[in-house]
Amino acid sequence: MQKEDGKQKNELDCNIGFIGLGVMGANLTLNLADHGYRVACFDLDQSKVDAIVAKDADERGDAEARITGCSSYTELLNKVKSPRLIILSVPAGDPVDNVCQHLIDAGVHADDIVVDTGNSLWTDSVAREEKYKSKFIFFTTAVSGGEVGARFGPSLMPSGNPYAWTRIEPVLKAIAAKVDPETGKPLESLIPGKPVLDGEPCATYIGPNGAGHYVKMVHNGIEYADMQLICETYQAMRTALHMAPAEIAEVFRRWNEGKLNSYLIEISAEVLEQMDPETSQPLVDVILDQAGQKGTGLWTAVSALQVGSPAQTITSAVFARSLSSLKDERVQASKILKGPNAPVLSDEQKLAAVNKLEQALYCSKICAYAQGFQLMSLAAKEHGWDLQFGDIAKIWRAGCIIRAEFLQSIARAYENNESLPNLLMDPFFADQITQYQLDWRESISQASLAGIPCPAMMSALSYYDSYRTAVLPANLLQGQRDYFGAHTYQRVDKPASKRFHLEWSDPARPQVAIKR
Amino acid sequence: MQKEDGKQKNELDCNIGFIGLGVMGANLTLNLADHGYRVACFDLDQSKVDAIVAKDADERGDAEARITGCSSYTELLNKVKSPRLIILSVPAGDPVDNVCQHLIDAGVHADDIVVDTGNSLWTDSVAREEKYKSKFIFFTTAVSGGEVGARFGPSLMPSGNPYAWTRIEPVLKAIAAKVDPETGKPLESLIPGKPVLDGEPCATYIGPNGAGHYVKMVHNGIEYADMQLICETYQAMRTALHMAPAEIAEVFRRWNEGKLNSYLIEISAEVLEQMDPETSQPLVDVILDQAGQKGTGLWTAVSALQVGSPAQTITSAVFARSLSSLKDERVQASKILKGPNAPVLSDEQKLAAVNKLEQALYCSKICAYAQGFQLMSLAAKEHGWDLQFGDIAKIWRAGCIIRAEFLQSIARAYENNESLPNLLMDPFFADQITQYQLDWRESISQASLAGIPCPAMMSALSYYDSYRTAVLPANLLQGQRDYFGAHTYQRVDKPASKRFHLEWSDPARPQVAIKR
Repeated sequence: MQKEDGKQKNELDCNIGFIGLGVMGANLTLNLADHGYRVACFDLDQSKVDAIVAKDADERGDAEARITGCSSYTELLNKVKSPRLIILSVPAGDPVDNVCQHLIDAGVHADDIVVDTGNSLWTDSVAREEKYKSKFIFFTTAVSGGEVGARFGPSLMPSGNPYAWTRIEPVLKAIAAKVDPETGKPLESLIPGKPVLDGEPCATYIGPNGAGHYVKMVHNGIEYADMQLICETYQAMRTALHMAPAEIAEVFRRWNEGKLNSYLIEISAEVLEQMDPETSQPLVDVILDQAGQKGTGLWTAVSALQVGSPAQTITSAVFARSLSSLKDERVQASKILKGPNAPVLSDEQKLAAVNKLEQALYCSKICAYAQGFQLMSLAAKEHGWDLQFGDIAKIWRAGCIIRAEFLQSIARAYENNESLPNLLMDPFFADQITQYQLDWRESISQASLAGIPCPAMMSALSYYDSYRTAVLPANLLQGQRDYFGAHTYQRVDKPASKRFHLEWSDPARPQVAIKR
Repeated sequence: MQKEDGKQKNELDCNIGFIGLGVMGANLTLNLADHGYRVACFDLDQSKVDAIVAKDADERGDAEARITGCSSYTELLNKVKSPRLIILSVPAGDPVDNVCQHLIDAGVHADDIVVDTGNSLWTDSVAREEKYKSKFIFFTTAVSGGEVGARFGPSLMPSGNPYAWTRIEPVLKAIAAKVDPETGKPLESLIPGKPVLDGEPCATYIGPNGAGHYVKMVHNGIEYADMQLICETYQAMRTALHMAPAEIAEVFRRWNEGKLNSYLIEISAEVLEQMDPETSQPLVDVILDQAGQKGTGLWTAVSALQVGSPAQTITSAVFARSLSSLKDERVQASKILKGPNAPVLSDEQKLAAVNKLEQALYCSKICAYAQGFQLMSLAAKEHGWDLQFGDIAKIWRAGCIIRAEFLQSIARAYENNESLPNLLMDPFFADQITQYQLDWRESISQASLAGIPCPAMMSALSYYDSYRTAVLPANLLQGQRDYFGAHTYQRVDKPASKRFHLEWSDPARPQVAIKR
């Protein structure tokens, strides 16, 4: 029997078991402790366990320390109150299953909840819930916000068993980022031990297992598009307008005061202002222009293709990264493939061009987000999820990478009309694009003539123009398909269920109705 | 014992067994017979068997008939000379495995070859070769050209066991489309029993199993892009230039005399000229503008994302089809979402605009094909295939949907430089784009200002401009990624193997080298 003195009592009574103490895991653990939870933690690397226990004791004082270390899965299970809540922060893929198996071997109970917080592929989460259902309750929550978010308030997208959610809800809402519900602005504290306690938490139940990771995946797809769009405006200013990085940083700071206000614009300014400690050049100029990717943007694009949701701006951002990685080829091509000369502009023309770019970025951004929400909507239909788009927009207002005031407008759009078919159809956004589209069109026109690549921005414009076109040339395309492959077509003046074929190889070319 | 009279002798001595007598299968069977092969054929639908036997006897006369019907798998195996060659034309997916299992049950031999000609997913073909290797030799050939191609000469992309190829080669080369090797133009005969016997056959060994279907898949991806690009020029002429379908057909006929000469341009003209037998309106106007898809374009786009090959024009064509299918939403949106008014043009300006569109289509088309070949090249590296791009371009000169003189230029590009990194880098194509790009850029600029959607054309231009850009804004993007996610970056002045991270949250922001 364990002694019943204070320390031991606390250890036996941990509220949460935490496995995996990498950057994200360690910060989530400290965040939990800040909110009063006693956490038993474990990592295969004992030094990480010792470090976090020491850090907690250091920050809070020994008497108030809330994190206790474990050196095995069994010890962790022994220290957490039943029914247990165990949170994992381990790399996506096999490590999740390895840890699950260890927990089974160590005697996890059927009513214990195991929460995966990694960047898992959403279909893996669905499979795991089924796989482990007789052993424990497998639940997931996607986490966005990087290391700072994990420490002081991330955006959380939990999904799984609704009964499990009722047990986890207070914990996740406590550690999540908070926003002022009126303004939609983040309420931030970056002081350990002094978390934000009021405000609206950036955590909401998304749906059955998999749904949360799906939504997080789309968040990342939107993030890809948003970043690429910002990069394209940077490129235009840098190449066509011959502006220096610091000058562009200033423009981004100005944009950040207006309707483009967002974390990504803010950090773009900071990156562009940054000098390289080694060469005293702008850091951006010494960074190699080969963008990496970890898969979530790609998964979003693949899912969009599979679901049949035209997320072309998100996809173009993924392809822009692939293309960037062909650095040697590009350098070679830059010497051979000709382009136009960018015209030399007066200061006044430059200023006008910059102002147009702001509107171009804004309109493109609306389209990128419209694509992301459209994808979630079509995927929800396919998978039978009842996604609440207003709530999803709300939990993205703080904590996550795409956090921005803009999300408040999206939340409002879905609050005004739960079944909005597309964000573009919301009166506010429709009006915004009406107001700014000329600048958007002119920016793209100029980029095209000046030879500045802007794949994401162009794809956004063609998305807008396609979406608002009542009759697309897909009628000619259906004619082509019927011509060479007898694929049949529907008629505008007949029920869509009826299909027709023209006998193209017959000189008389009779039209026949096809029975299905 | 069978009797040894003429008829029975022939039946015992069939060269080929053919299973599946749908439109494609029936036509391939007749094509084989035209080239002197005696074919034993089988279909679950006995009426199809009877029909093809009757048709063969009718066309060739009873004495010369070469097709014999079977009413079971066993009968088919009995009628074909060993080692047997059996060709399948059944729907992709489970039906292929069903037929394979029936053949096993009926006693197929280990040195019999079974050739799948369906639109199978290439990874399925790889799996099937392995699955059936102890039972028979599973070989595949992708077939392009629709029903007419199947009857009088398709483009064939065979892949699998090289020993099997030596046995199949004469058969496939016989039935394939033929081209004049000098001009690259198809040598066509549409007369049953009078096939083209000379010329270069559009069939070449592609590589190990799966490679042929992969190449065919990319062919279809390119086809999607080519069709979409044609449709976009149609849309521009129709909407911005207010031209009637018959007028546009005339333009396409004119283009078909020049560098855009291709089957797809030719049939587009025919579709646009066609009147609806029912309403006496242009047929294109009564066809519903919702494009269908059967998967191969989607597979190409997904593969491009997975391989990291920026096939954005192909992908935008897939998304354009998805978007077209949202007809009700588009009609609704067309009433709400504002666009600019297309300017009214004089006849002279119209003519100039049409001429620019020709160049725009041509330059975009070069980029779409460049993306397809780039994808095959990156996929070949990943899968260890030694693809011969010159030969692939050659077998696409006739028989298939994208057949065009253009392919002769591509074949020449790869003949001149086997390791061409990108089609754009071939001197001929580089020069073509230099020559015509201003018209391309102006067309896109005008479309952007006039509100005409041209997703594929824009994606092609941004592909070109991105590919020829030595320094892309992916440097800013890597800075952003390092800022919010500590994803690290490489430096232009250090080996690519070294990665760096800036401590963004530290006020002094030191740069640290990351050990991997």
